[in-house]
Amino acid sequence: MTYKEKLSAIRSIMAESGIDACLIPSSDPHISEYVPERYKSIQFLSGFTGSAGTLAITANFAGLWTDFRYFEQATAQLEGSGFELVKLKIQHTPEYIQWLGEHLGTGAKIAFDFKVVSVLLGEEIMSSLSARGITFENIDLLEHVWTNRPTLPDNEVTLLSESACGQTFASKLADLRLELNKQKADVHLMSSLDDLAWLFNIRGSDVNYNPVVLCHALISATQVVLYVDENKLTDANRALLNERLVVLKPYDNIYTDIAQLENCSILIDDKRSNFSLFNLLAASVKFNRSTNPTVFLKSIKNATEIENIRKAMVADGVALTRFFKWLEKHIDKIEITELSAVAKIQYFREMDPSFAGLSFATIAGYAAHAALPHYTPNEETDVALKEKGLFLLDSGGHYHFGTTDVTRTVPLGITTDEEKTDYTLVLSAFIFGAAAKFPQGTKGYQIDGIVRQQLWQQGINYGHGTGHGVGYYLNVHEGPQNIGPANVPIAVDLGMVTSIEPGIYRPGKHGVRTENLMLTTMAETTEFGSFLQFESLTLAYIDTSIIIRDLLLPQQLDWLNNYNEMVYQKLKTKLTEEEAIWLAGKCKAI
Amino acid sequence: MTYKEKLSAIRSIMAESGIDACLIPSSDPHISEYVPERYKSIQFLSGFTGSAGTLAITANFAGLWTDFRYFEQATAQLEGSGFELVKLKIQHTPEYIQWLGEHLGTGAKIAFDFKVVSVLLGEEIMSSLSARGITFENIDLLEHVWTNRPTLPDNEVTLLSESACGQTFASKLADLRLELNKQKADVHLMSSLDDLAWLFNIRGSDVNYNPVVLCHALISATQVVLYVDENKLTDANRALLNERLVVLKPYDNIYTDIAQLENCSILIDDKRSNFSLFNLLAASVKFNRSTNPTVFLKSIKNATEIENIRKAMVADGVALTRFFKWLEKHIDKIEITELSAVAKIQYFREMDPSFAGLSFATIAGYAAHAALPHYTPNEETDVALKEKGLFLLDSGGHYHFGTTDVTRTVPLGITTDEEKTDYTLVLSAFIFGAAAKFPQGTKGYQIDGIVRQQLWQQGINYGHGTGHGVGYYLNVHEGPQNIGPANVPIAVDLGMVTSIEPGIYRPGKHGVRTENLMLTTMAETTEFGSFLQFESLTLAYIDTSIIIRDLLLPQQLDWLNNYNEMVYQKLKTKLTEEEAIWLAGKCKAI
Repeated sequence: MTYKEKLSAIRSIMAESGIDACLIPSSDPHISEYVPERYKSIQFLSGFTGSAGTLAITANFAGLWTDFRYFEQATAQLEGSGFELVKLKIQHTPEYIQWLGEHLGTGAKIAFDFKVVSVLLGEEIMSSLSARGITFENIDLLEHVWTNRPTLPDNEVTLLSESACGQTFASKLADLRLELNKQKADVHLMSSLDDLAWLFNIRGSDVNYNPVVLCHALISATQVVLYVDENKLTDANRALLNERLVVLKPYDNIYTDIAQLENCSILIDDKRSNFSLFNLLAASVKFNRSTNPTVFLKSIKNATEIENIRKAMVADGVALTRFFKWLEKHIDKIEITELSAVAKIQYFREMDPSFAGLSFATIAGYAAHAALPHYTPNEETDVALKEKGLFLLDSGGHYHFGTTDVTRTVPLGITTDEEKTDYTLVLSAFIFGAAAKFPQGTKGYQIDGIVRQQLWQQGINYGHGTGHGVGYYLNVHEGPQNIGPANVPIAVDLGMVTSIEPGIYRPGKHGVRTENLMLTTMAETTEFGSFLQFESLTLAYIDTSIIIRDLLLPQQLDWLNNYNEMVYQKLKTKLTEEEAIWLAGKCKAI
Repeated sequence: MTYKEKLSAIRSIMAESGIDACLIPSSDPHISEYVPERYKSIQFLSGFTGSAGTLAITANFAGLWTDFRYFEQATAQLEGSGFELVKLKIQHTPEYIQWLGEHLGTGAKIAFDFKVVSVLLGEEIMSSLSARGITFENIDLLEHVWTNRPTLPDNEVTLLSESACGQTFASKLADLRLELNKQKADVHLMSSLDDLAWLFNIRGSDVNYNPVVLCHALISATQVVLYVDENKLTDANRALLNERLVVLKPYDNIYTDIAQLENCSILIDDKRSNFSLFNLLAASVKFNRSTNPTVFLKSIKNATEIENIRKAMVADGVALTRFFKWLEKHIDKIEITELSAVAKIQYFREMDPSFAGLSFATIAGYAAHAALPHYTPNEETDVALKEKGLFLLDSGGHYHFGTTDVTRTVPLGITTDEEKTDYTLVLSAFIFGAAAKFPQGTKGYQIDGIVRQQLWQQGINYGHGTGHGVGYYLNVHEGPQNIGPANVPIAVDLGMVTSIEPGIYRPGKHGVRTENLMLTTMAETTEFGSFLQFESLTLAYIDTSIIIRDLLLPQQLDWLNNYNEMVYQKLKTKLTEEEAIWLAGKCKAI
């Protein structure tokens, strides 16, 4: 079926069922960022492969609403699909709601699968549109069009040992129950896959890049029910979970069980639970909408996790050293393209026995491609790397002992003055963040200002966040903290792992970004209170060859030299002698 | 009556009326920061004169809830009053609600005057406590205890000419109605006195330090009703307002008129309107709770206002120059105390014919007194200034052409190394803010991080905000923008006037603060967007004699030298030759 034929099929069903508009979001029943194949509905219908977007279809219009990151890609991919690109003015906002309000008549009917929108979004759609007599139908129209739709994955579940995660399920459950008690919640619905993986100390491979297991849970003071496909569990694991008093039920039973709750209060995270589950709650159930307590609990890494992450960083640093050495040696000698570079860094990472997969699609951009902050090369866009200009590599892996995410930009030969300046300015902004000291309680948005001001003074800015939380052998994007301009009132607290990654992007020319993962540690306590600081967990040398010294302060140069020296010291014994000598050269103080 | 007798009287009425607890907040029917004498209820009952606090009284406890700024003062003032100090953990939070919940039985009755709490606070009190069967009575118990309670002021109203304010009432009204139309509001209640003063181009003297007029207004698409005591208006002003189609009604009629609204939607600012008015709304009135549109409109100063503010700054700068010259000449020659310094700076300000009063109680702290950021001297605390250490003066005036607020810290003789270091660090933080460039849309909390990081790096912080908006010949604290750590998601936009005022406070030793008012102007537009910057409006030299040069970057020294040179150039022709020569010395580049 062509995309146009699929669209016709959808419209036929809509006409038969008296549906005036349908919405196809890009999520799954767990409101995930990355979704299983079964939920790649937008790709199936329109060909668009970006990670964020929404389709809205009426009898005479079919559109994809997506944000500036994907304008170019969507324009290309939607060609001939029958779908038009609608450019979002503001990222992550449901601007299609207003459009539907303006284009549908009174009493119109809108269909969407309540399972793949969050409670918050479902309510927003309904409250914005229902005033005009618009009604809603909870239906997954794709079921009638998508023959051979992929089934849900049934990959095996791994249970982490205590030495791998530092805190037993029983202990985490006790912490969670304390929170539920504080919030006077009798029952707690958990649907967010990373929270579930953290609580139950399970990992899986049901979703690309996220080592999670498709499941839900209902937790009360006396019972824990895990809704998961039993095929995913070995007998041994099933026995272990039973021993931990976890009641196992089939994945879909959550829908019948939640409907049977009565006369209790339930804690539901309205951003991390689906609207379908919410709509099944009986009228006698009191709904307490709060962020899942596990979001906060899992963001503070315990001592075992931190020690393990350090090991993962050594493994990752070795892979990165080998990659950049290989790149320097072979550039312009053998054919190296963005895609072959992506394969090579994966190859070096895979050499480590604890490697468990990529933590996101590798961003490898040469020259002008690096000016697209989220560019990942494919067969059509792939270009050869030449012995000049800048190459940006933003990549990361899951290890059984942690998750990495690191960006380095390196010169491949001659660079322009503008490239050198931009490289140094990004480094300056990065170091301002990395070397920051701040009172306990400081929010990410204040640290964002500290990092960006180095670029703002030059009339430069970047369109993405400065940093995000990172999971422990879990999702590479993990809340609740965030370093960015938005008013996320969450402190960057002791024990959190957060990226710092400023950049400069000159469309058509080049892109620069430098990123480390940072552990928040205690700096000092003075008469003015407790102050925190960052410790760089990432172990990858920062290229010094194209730095314009005058753009850095003496204390910034000190920070850089100390950092590179630490990288060398921590990696040298894991490298061959030749590799260590090469790295020593890269890490030499300037 | 002693405070204890007053408390007994209140308790007798409570007992007679079956009231278990009563609340006495520190506000007025306009939810003002500064209130008319009639509403200084906390001072009347307990003797406490701080600007923020709440009394809660039960049969066996009477407490004042206030924040850390007032702990020392409250302890002293409450002695023997029968009231105990309850220390707020978090500033500006109603922690007494929880206390009442814990100490009152089921079915208890709480009394408070609904007129002196905001809609938001009234709702919070009720929703937090009503679950436990607690009921509420809208009563002003002070009416029965406070004989000779001051009546409301009936000071004369001034109408500003167009040349004084740059935009006619008609034009402001049109802007406001556009906003009401956008928000689909049929009627708009305005109770916040600075918004009313701005909209109607009126000024008064009903409240200390705020040149406002006690009034309310109801505004619809076709009518404007101003509720104001007619005695405040001259015949000419009444005629002018009638000409502008403003219907004048007695101040208290707002309560009867709002109760008569039916079948419409009303825009009410739940932080800037009182709970009593809100409770009078008929069930058929739809309540749209938004910030008063005038809050945003008045924050963007028009060209006339900006030009006028510049004139006010010259007048203020002349007064400050004269004051500091006088201080330097007479220190240790004649007796100068904090209070006499306060009188002297006021004297120099009053020399300007356009001076219209102080914009806040002058903060004049010598040595350890300056370590209390909000210290204002009184007869008991007053000390003599000596020829050593630091003197902090935070003061401001209203001029018919603008409002000022400026802080300077100056050495009076020998200073310690710590004083010099702290002085320079504060200056460094101040200049980081003053010289900041930032993209349009940047929020105050990001700028806060930029300013504070200079101090954070040294393990230093300060417990107050970095900056606040300032009105045009209006309140010295004006929203919506704010430079501080709280997540106030308001951009510091073009045309706003905002203070920048970092500080360091060493209890028992000294305090340093440096503050200018800043106009946000356009810096440049680059390929990365539009960037804004600050222009210092304040014209007062910054002392350079105790700067530790090595703690400032070369570009910071440049900023400082340029600033002082500008101060000299803009003031010199307004000074006597002797004064100009003295100022030239103070402004000499270092």
